[in-house]
Amino acid sequence: MKDFTDQEIAAIYRVVALRRDMRHFLPDPLDDALMERLLGAAHLAPSVGFMQPWRFIRIRDRELRNQIHSLVEAERKATAQALGEREDEFMRLKVEGIRECGEVLVVALTHDREHHIFGRRTLPEMDLASVACAIQNLWLVARAENVGMGWVSLFEPEGLRQLLRMPEGSRPVAILCLGYVPEFYRLPMLEESGWAHRADLRELVKTDYWVP
Amino acid sequence: MKDFTDQEIAAIYRVVALRRDMRHFLPDPLDDALMERLLGAAHLAPSVGFMQPWRFIRIRDRELRNQIHSLVEAERKATAQALGEREDEFMRLKVEGIRECGEVLVVALTHDREHHIFGRRTLPEMDLASVACAIQNLWLVARAENVGMGWVSLFEPEGLRQLLRMPEGSRPVAILCLGYVPEFYRLPMLEESGWAHRADLRELVKTDYWVP
Repeated sequence: MKDFTDQEIAAIYRVVALRRDMRHFLPDPLDDALMERLLGAAHLAPSVGFMQPWRFIRIRDRELRNQIHSLVEAERKATAQALGEREDEFMRLKVEGIRECGEVLVVALTHDREHHIFGRRTLPEMDLASVACAIQNLWLVARAENVGMGWVSLFEPEGLRQLLRMPEGSRPVAILCLGYVPEFYRLPMLEESGWAHRADLRELVKTDYWVP
Repeated sequence: MKDFTDQEIAAIYRVVALRRDMRHFLPDPLDDALMERLLGAAHLAPSVGFMQPWRFIRIRDRELRNQIHSLVEAERKATAQALGEREDEFMRLKVEGIRECGEVLVVALTHDREHHIFGRRTLPEMDLASVACAIQNLWLVARAENVGMGWVSLFEPEGLRQLLRMPEGSRPVAILCLGYVPEFYRLPMLEESGWAHRADLRELVKTDYWVP
């Protein structure tokens, strides 16, 4: 007994294939009902020991959005310098659409995660893995609804934590740009621009042992 | 111009809602074409700076699978002891289906990640976030194809790395149990068993500032 028709299965593969990390947006806002659907899908993600470590901060204040943009711009320059010989190439890339997009959403790991031991005693980073799954859920349903998303990780987390008055021990891990887009990129932007190439899947899959 | 019909959009939300972390499996194997589709969807995940840090090890050897199970069993007992007063309750939970499932897949962060700076200078853990997105892709398309999956993170990563002859600097982050299932849980198993409850989404979403 199947729960999905062939057409539905194909649509699920298609949304996985058409999802893009977007940096070009139209300014139209996203309505609250849509945001609730997207956040609801994020909240249905798996989490280690069912700890649900994700927290979401919707940035509605325009001045706060500008301050977030400044934090990202500072880190963009620091990253460019750290890249050395690829500095100029990097500086030509568009890496975020914070000021243009319909809505900015900051996603964070909650504080007081220490008492969650189930599945984390030897792999404490599983809390972040859970948050990433939530973000991927959100990304896919957004794409299905024709909404673009970009995940910006160019920021100094302590600075952003303080700016958003987040409790000590919490950690912002994503600035998400959400919104309608002129068009979805045909390929990942970093592939289209020649920054990097997609690896051959066969080289990433091993059998039984990594080193034979 | 929309790329998905209303029925397709609904199917994408539905697969997000019906995905479960499974621990009960039927032993039927998964055929190679299916595994290729699942791995192909994983490989289409976003990755920070397009670094594609994911590596997959298909465990085909039965004795190796048993050894992996032993590693998990050791960590299950260590976790139970660390949990203190919830030790007995934890030990009654079924936490993995490694010996029963159709196929075991280990997912790892590759070695030589240090030179990937784009999006990771201040947030080096974004490589793990990318791998988690790949696993979530795989999870969702598996569910669409009526295949269950469980993400086991109860293991000592260095022990598993050595067992699978993985290079130094790489890090296994998931033992995935994949396979057909007697039925999908109606609710997350940890919710059904009373281990934890789903949080109210409204308490996880803030506006502008976490602490008003």
